[in-house]
Amino acid sequence: MRLVTLKDGSADGRLAVLSPDGKTCAAAPVTTLQAALEDWTHWAPLLAAVRNFPQPLDLSALAAPLPRAWQWLDGSAYESHGQLMAKVFGRKDDQRERPLMYQGMSDRFYGPNDDVPFPDESFGIDFEGEFGVITDEVPMGTTAAQALGHIRLLVQINDWSLRALASEEMKTGFGWVQAKPACSMAPFAVTPDEIGPQWRNGRVCLDLEVAWNGQRFGAANGEPMGFGFHELVAHAARTRHLVAGTVIGSGTVSNDNFREIGSSCIAERRGIEIVDEGAARTAYMKFGDVVRMQATTTDGRAPFGVIEQKVVRA
Amino acid sequence: MRLVTLKDGSADGRLAVLSPDGKTCAAAPVTTLQAALEDWTHWAPLLAAVRNFPQPLDLSALAAPLPRAWQWLDGSAYESHGQLMAKVFGRKDDQRERPLMYQGMSDRFYGPNDDVPFPDESFGIDFEGEFGVITDEVPMGTTAAQALGHIRLLVQINDWSLRALASEEMKTGFGWVQAKPACSMAPFAVTPDEIGPQWRNGRVCLDLEVAWNGQRFGAANGEPMGFGFHELVAHAARTRHLVAGTVIGSGTVSNDNFREIGSSCIAERRGIEIVDEGAARTAYMKFGDVVRMQATTTDGRAPFGVIEQKVVRA
Repeated sequence: MRLVTLKDGSADGRLAVLSPDGKTCAAAPVTTLQAALEDWTHWAPLLAAVRNFPQPLDLSALAAPLPRAWQWLDGSAYESHGQLMAKVFGRKDDQRERPLMYQGMSDRFYGPNDDVPFPDESFGIDFEGEFGVITDEVPMGTTAAQALGHIRLLVQINDWSLRALASEEMKTGFGWVQAKPACSMAPFAVTPDEIGPQWRNGRVCLDLEVAWNGQRFGAANGEPMGFGFHELVAHAARTRHLVAGTVIGSGTVSNDNFREIGSSCIAERRGIEIVDEGAARTAYMKFGDVVRMQATTTDGRAPFGVIEQKVVRA
Repeated sequence: MRLVTLKDGSADGRLAVLSPDGKTCAAAPVTTLQAALEDWTHWAPLLAAVRNFPQPLDLSALAAPLPRAWQWLDGSAYESHGQLMAKVFGRKDDQRERPLMYQGMSDRFYGPNDDVPFPDESFGIDFEGEFGVITDEVPMGTTAAQALGHIRLLVQINDWSLRALASEEMKTGFGWVQAKPACSMAPFAVTPDEIGPQWRNGRVCLDLEVAWNGQRFGAANGEPMGFGFHELVAHAARTRHLVAGTVIGSGTVSNDNFREIGSSCIAERRGIEIVDEGAARTAYMKFGDVVRMQATTTDGRAPFGVIEQKVVRA
């Protein structure tokens, strides 16, 4: 089952079910995805039972499948990315016994084709291709094994980052506020069965194809997370109940062979340049630049659809 | 004007207006505080016009005035606290050119008399007495001077912290997730005029009286913030729109003369012990412990009412 949210002028939009061929949709029997997640065992079968999809899909009318969430927690689970960044910034990156995670802005997720406004190019505008999961309500103390059953939907995310502001914020130990404005989501939120065996061990094992201004930038696979999503959910739920509709991100998808397959964010490419050539050559994004992200299955499908967005001056 | 939210079984509760004497209340002409904040210029005069308060106030039926928020950003604006903590933990605390701020869990604020559950006493359960503001929608790029007009309500907050988990999380640079579960709010959200001249320069200039198990613990005054709330709002809005109903916190209220007037959190008292005596003597909270917090005006009123809560095993 794949779900979309149609823009209707409200903050939460109007939930719809996508046809199997992805060309049409049907109004859902529940108004919003948030409402569906709050009573998922009731709504999921009713959503899955929709068989008639009369409405042509207008990509420009799509919001993020969850246009706002009560909670967004982003991990940094790809060790090849973490180790490179640590090396570039002279930080320690100890063998990790626990996941890295920060709490991010959740009151707005941009739709897949929305222009994304930033105040200043000098802030170091960067994309970050990620996978994410959406949970129903998760009780405090839920184990990783139990957490798998609370992962109701998979999503694909662009976690916008302002790199020139990130380093100073990180040094404080308080995490990021200015460096992490609103993220974007690909158009379709999907149940794990939609990617079949490529959902395994709590990982979205798909290639994430990233292009910047029409040039291929990377195609890292989602599999090599140091911690699976179920472990990220359990980490988050150690001392709090997770509200239904909590979104948990993987962090920038990255593979050990990033020199061959490329990267999911500019900062990683710049890191490779610094290590290999002594200085970063690649500049961050300019107003008018476009980033495109598509996760692809081994049989050539794009289960989450496509993020394609232009960066604009606020 | 002072506003309360009555528990009604829903996540957002039911908004009511408090009588001037604080003994009764009246159902508000708008259902929830969130809805009021989304159209404040419309609703504020209608809320202020309520003159008949027929319903006796039942303190045990009160939720937090804003029981959940789309965004909670907490500062650390009291330099006496920051400098002491930096000294104890061997961190640098440079003269600050910009506010410290992290994004916290916002999907739940405990009511003023709710029991507060934690999984384990060994996590270092601590209270943190703070002041906070609630804004309407704040456009990206709003200046500090403009931000003053977006501060619609003042609140009093207990920012629960799990100190044994905080240090490790802070070292990652990602901020806190496990160490910062849900906060609590005092029962009354108040318009700034309710504290008259004690709201000045974007600061809540009230003594915050804190007692732990009936023993006076501290009474720091809210005035000596290194940055005022208007500056915290502008900091937060530098790269994002702030959604209506954003809550921004001061961080632990602290004064230079903490050895005389006491502290608003246990960690600060332990820091003083470490500096003065070489080791911390005061243990963190145990299950069954009660913390009480009340901000008091110079003429003896408690505009926010009282937080009085017991810590319990989850």
